[in-house]
Amino acid sequence: MKPRVLTGITTTGTPHLGNYVGAIRPTVRASRDARFDSFLFLADLHALVKCDEPERVRRSRLQIAASWLAAGLDPAKVTLYRQSDIPEIPELTWILGCVTAKGLMNRAHAYKAAVDRNSASGEDPDAGISMGLYSYPVLMAADILLFNAQFVPVGRDQIQHVEMARDIAQRFNRVFGSGDGPFVLPQAQVEEHVATLPGLDGRKMSKSYDNTIALFEGGAKKLHASIRRIVTDSRVPGEPKDAENSQLYAIYRAFAEPDDAAAFKDELEKGLGWGPAKERLYALVDGELAPMRERYDALVAHPEQVEEVLLAGARKAREIAVPFMEGLRRSVGLRL
Amino acid sequence: MKPRVLTGITTTGTPHLGNYVGAIRPTVRASRDARFDSFLFLADLHALVKCDEPERVRRSRLQIAASWLAAGLDPAKVTLYRQSDIPEIPELTWILGCVTAKGLMNRAHAYKAAVDRNSASGEDPDAGISMGLYSYPVLMAADILLFNAQFVPVGRDQIQHVEMARDIAQRFNRVFGSGDGPFVLPQAQVEEHVATLPGLDGRKMSKSYDNTIALFEGGAKKLHASIRRIVTDSRVPGEPKDAENSQLYAIYRAFAEPDDAAAFKDELEKGLGWGPAKERLYALVDGELAPMRERYDALVAHPEQVEEVLLAGARKAREIAVPFMEGLRRSVGLRL
Repeated sequence: MKPRVLTGITTTGTPHLGNYVGAIRPTVRASRDARFDSFLFLADLHALVKCDEPERVRRSRLQIAASWLAAGLDPAKVTLYRQSDIPEIPELTWILGCVTAKGLMNRAHAYKAAVDRNSASGEDPDAGISMGLYSYPVLMAADILLFNAQFVPVGRDQIQHVEMARDIAQRFNRVFGSGDGPFVLPQAQVEEHVATLPGLDGRKMSKSYDNTIALFEGGAKKLHASIRRIVTDSRVPGEPKDAENSQLYAIYRAFAEPDDAAAFKDELEKGLGWGPAKERLYALVDGELAPMRERYDALVAHPEQVEEVLLAGARKAREIAVPFMEGLRRSVGLRL
Repeated sequence: MKPRVLTGITTTGTPHLGNYVGAIRPTVRASRDARFDSFLFLADLHALVKCDEPERVRRSRLQIAASWLAAGLDPAKVTLYRQSDIPEIPELTWILGCVTAKGLMNRAHAYKAAVDRNSASGEDPDAGISMGLYSYPVLMAADILLFNAQFVPVGRDQIQHVEMARDIAQRFNRVFGSGDGPFVLPQAQVEEHVATLPGLDGRKMSKSYDNTIALFEGGAKKLHASIRRIVTDSRVPGEPKDAENSQLYAIYRAFAEPDDAAAFKDELEKGLGWGPAKERLYALVDGELAPMRERYDALVAHPEQVEEVLLAGARKAREIAVPFMEGLRRSVGLRL
């Protein structure tokens, strides 16, 4: 069996250029590597933790699925599914919860940060914290362990979740398994070299800073307008620019071939004006995105087509999940 | 639609005479009341919270199912199912967890008692507490709310769980529903008049006191031996007995017609010896249990027959659960 690589995307936002450069594009490329089996899922059960707006969850799921497909993800080559289509995931979550020490959850970064904020403002430590937020590392362990994923590409802030999944898997293997099964111990694959794109204001591009450039939504016109809004310094045309420290160049570099990026940098340092530089950036980015955008728009206009792809993916995922869970149920005593 | 009454039985022990008198017999009788729809389930996902011995969970589930069926539960008239056969239950557990305040769980009696014990012995407050133990009131809410059960017969110690299910249902209805739907608010039905049987030693008959009389396991011989082990005082034959305060009489009364019970009491007060009194008690209890025991033994010898009954019950339960969850998924945004 090929080693499995698993990636989940929480369905609460609209994909932006930072998601594309940092996650979608590299993951789509990696999914073509025949040495691995790629599992990609739309983490809508996780989305419920942060979002009680059904329409937003629905819309985001559609936009994200359409973005991945438009960016070249081939559902025939990977296993692409919606988390909530796999009933074995919440079932495994419960079973794993029974071997998970509550103390482990108390150490989760997201929970600790929420408690610290509450304490700082004199609130009850658990104010505003739901059971969903508190127990989502167990759900994440189930996401990973159900498919015995060996590699989980994550950012630094998520390493802890993979470590918790390992802890839980080890405990389960010891109590109910053979010691080194049924669960493979997953490894976090920390992506040191993944580009994090600066946003409009120069800080990391992130929904929470409201500084993003939408990937496909709004079309070429919106992309153009956003790029024109990128904050620059006040150096006038002809004045040499500090390319290395400008977000304009950082974004350019993420889309250009190395030689072209070097040439662009050189021009900026020789005095290329910010206005023409933005036009050049727009042409470059739109050159890559325009063909994808067409496909994206077609998919978003036909949610039922995306639905079909997801349901086919769920069937594929469950060909693995159903027999695996059947064995697991027996091993804990739920079946004869 | 008839109001639904829901009862769950955790599958960790072997049914004893106290379970029969306090739960099995009255519930089987109540299940024949045509004004209500009875839902009965083997709570094996709850069993995993307390028990990591697969063989014990398996064995207990078989013994409990066989006991209920032997005691006259008609699977055609009620909905009898194994909790782990209904994947909608853990799925709903996750969804409900996202609207459940963590603070609510902190107030659960069982969790608080465990924390108190830990604190008293100088341990970390959460020592030995699993996520299963901590979050099982959410699972219980899902058990109840998935079938929109209106009445939940419980002992005093379980009222809190039904109240939590109400809280969670109200919160969900407010955030995602119409205010008074999709969930019916369940009511605890506290059984004030349910007989709690004394055990061999006079304390309440309970597995945790190791003072139980097995219901069917071990056959007539074991029943006889157990009844002979009931602790009595040292009054000799001919000496008047304090019937009212003897567990022998308490058990007798739970099985006899009122007139017969009164006559037995009278004889004890007139000096009937404990030895012959035990023989009379055995004859009475065995008279009720012997025909059931035959059916019980046949079922336990054929686990696959019990399995068939449970799978048929699961299909019946899912005729309700599947469409209900489909609507619920839409209402939180998991589906188009």
